[in-house]
Amino acid sequence: MSELKGACIVGQSGGPTAVINASLQGVIQAALNADCITHVYGAAHGIKGILDDQLYDMNQEDPEEIDLLQYTPSAALGSCRYKLADPDDDDTDYKRILEIFKKYDVRYFFYNGGNDSMDTCSKVSRYMEENGYECRIIGVPKTIDNDLVGTDHCPGFPSAAKFVATTSMEVLRDAHVYDTGMVIIMEVMGRDTGWLTGASALASLNGDGPDLIYMPETDFYMDRFLAEVKSVVERKGDCFVAVSEGIHYPDGTLVSDTETRAKDSFGHAQLGGLAAMLADEVKIALDIKVRGIELSLLQRCASHLASARDVAEARRAGFVAVESAIKGASDKMVGFDCKRDYGYYCEFKLVDLAYVANKVKTVPREWINEQGNGVTQEFFDYMLPLIQGRPDYPMENNMPRFTHFKRVLAK
Amino acid sequence: MSELKGACIVGQSGGPTAVINASLQGVIQAALNADCITHVYGAAHGIKGILDDQLYDMNQEDPEEIDLLQYTPSAALGSCRYKLADPDDDDTDYKRILEIFKKYDVRYFFYNGGNDSMDTCSKVSRYMEENGYECRIIGVPKTIDNDLVGTDHCPGFPSAAKFVATTSMEVLRDAHVYDTGMVIIMEVMGRDTGWLTGASALASLNGDGPDLIYMPETDFYMDRFLAEVKSVVERKGDCFVAVSEGIHYPDGTLVSDTETRAKDSFGHAQLGGLAAMLADEVKIALDIKVRGIELSLLQRCASHLASARDVAEARRAGFVAVESAIKGASDKMVGFDCKRDYGYYCEFKLVDLAYVANKVKTVPREWINEQGNGVTQEFFDYMLPLIQGRPDYPMENNMPRFTHFKRVLAK
Repeated sequence: MSELKGACIVGQSGGPTAVINASLQGVIQAALNADCITHVYGAAHGIKGILDDQLYDMNQEDPEEIDLLQYTPSAALGSCRYKLADPDDDDTDYKRILEIFKKYDVRYFFYNGGNDSMDTCSKVSRYMEENGYECRIIGVPKTIDNDLVGTDHCPGFPSAAKFVATTSMEVLRDAHVYDTGMVIIMEVMGRDTGWLTGASALASLNGDGPDLIYMPETDFYMDRFLAEVKSVVERKGDCFVAVSEGIHYPDGTLVSDTETRAKDSFGHAQLGGLAAMLADEVKIALDIKVRGIELSLLQRCASHLASARDVAEARRAGFVAVESAIKGASDKMVGFDCKRDYGYYCEFKLVDLAYVANKVKTVPREWINEQGNGVTQEFFDYMLPLIQGRPDYPMENNMPRFTHFKRVLAK
Repeated sequence: MSELKGACIVGQSGGPTAVINASLQGVIQAALNADCITHVYGAAHGIKGILDDQLYDMNQEDPEEIDLLQYTPSAALGSCRYKLADPDDDDTDYKRILEIFKKYDVRYFFYNGGNDSMDTCSKVSRYMEENGYECRIIGVPKTIDNDLVGTDHCPGFPSAAKFVATTSMEVLRDAHVYDTGMVIIMEVMGRDTGWLTGASALASLNGDGPDLIYMPETDFYMDRFLAEVKSVVERKGDCFVAVSEGIHYPDGTLVSDTETRAKDSFGHAQLGGLAAMLADEVKIALDIKVRGIELSLLQRCASHLASARDVAEARRAGFVAVESAIKGASDKMVGFDCKRDYGYYCEFKLVDLAYVANKVKTVPREWINEQGNGVTQEFFDYMLPLIQGRPDYPMENNMPRFTHFKRVLAK
């Protein structure tokens, strides 16, 4: 493959994670070091920054700040949830992207995101090829949901999992402090898959795990749930429950769906999310002290508790994206190929974007116990190597020191 | 003072913290090493364990497990919220306590808690003295609320403060990731005082702090709050608000009071706490994306993010309690006397229990800005030395390794 000379754009998309900036760092550092990449731009708020001609000039950022990206949560360039139309229906956005690519002589495009973002990458890639514009496009995976196909796991997930597991241990200790009995309902992110909620089970390896875990991979029955909580409370006096935000009844209705729940006298939907709603159900049914806890944004931005392996892999995925593009690859996502037989071993591979786009990888049913309220040994074996190591993040005022970009707009 | 020979009981009371077990460790290790202390008992669930004759035999616990207490959140012996009657009104409990003290020849009693617990200590101390039973009673302070008088600060508060500040930084990064505008309302513990909510301001030293902070020390006006949020959103596009759970209107009614809030059609109080309620108000008034986040139990049990100085001071306070009692002190609480002029320096002192009991130390009004929506430099100067250092907690399966006690009941 001949050398392709030109600028590159890197963008971040979808919900942020604790390590998406580590991937950004990998891309930026590899691109700045590559002779054939003439300039490095960061798209402000993902694909929207390209459409709006809002590109940050990465060549003007301090190397020290770029190096801090690996310890900085959230998306340093800003993110978006913008879905491109199909180019056969409406090619306005694609024309604009091509215009911007030509304006800045962009020949490399790296997009860091989940399955929607891989769809964006795939469509842009196809459009560029059909219009004879040579440009190499590589997706870099990220999502705390861990729901991308074509990869052993997704950067961001291990760190979120480590936060969920560690927090489960701590909360469980706190919840058991009185002798009056207590039910804790902890709500974990995950609309379509239970990977992250399942990670709470890791805490039980150290003796402090949830009693019951409910994930979207199985149907939820309120009466069965209440009976299972009651049974644990009768046996232990307390009960600690982890639930995915995406749990649903057999007909597919989300348990958290506010439409089907009561409204107050002003017509407001009831406040509070799934945890508060389930806590109310348990309180009414069992007449016991209950606390609903929503891990909220904390679970996806807790870089102080990241998995060092996740940080390293996320960064490496950024490097691999650039290296592969320079070698000629395009229309691919960087995937992880991992072995666990004789210790953990992770190799990088390239997967077709079209294969990844818009698909969802759920937790295998056999990794969930028969009753649908816990996980099996296979889940632990899969998870444990991923949460390895503590990142040694730099401090300022005894708090983390995050990247501060100048954000100089390219002209 | 003559040497007093006998057993000791140590108990934990009130809401747990990340370091209350560090104080427990200090007491246990000092007591096990003291020649005049013949046996060390841990009261199950505080004073209730004494009343119920449920005492754990600390001499039978592994020294390695005792040493892990400093990294273990929550109260390892269990806690309670039991308030003793005034002995002049009803001395049933006191008679029982004396009976148990005599049964086990208890001559030392160490109680780890907040102002209610210091009241308990004080009453028990007075009763023992009036009944001619020689027993030395020392309180060890703890509370994330930092509201005890007679001490520079309370163990547990610095670690919770560090969690709140670090989490503020991370959440702020996450909240600013989209360009669509976002208001975050973060609810922090503190019914009577705003110490912990104020600690969120530390994040601004690293460039990522809340825009507005509301504490119980000043009155809350909903219209002013909405106007202040609006003003920040107009200026910056986003707004990050930290609120104490105890904020109240000028008439004293808690803003979170569910009685004064609308009920749904079944007569349930609205679900969700203060954060969800304020988020709803902002959404209606400003028509902007809002997210309410309740830090819930996480803020008081996050030992993985404790302040190493807090851990060390909490443990030392336990030592000092035992050393002081052996030297003859009684009816005292261990207090901290700190200087910050030429670097941070902390000395221990003894304060009369009766002076501490049932009092509340609020944030000085002059440490809060004039508008009542932020803190001043004095607050930062006070706080910064307290959150020093990262504890190097041991890991198992890449998660924290907490103490597991055998909990052998004394006969």
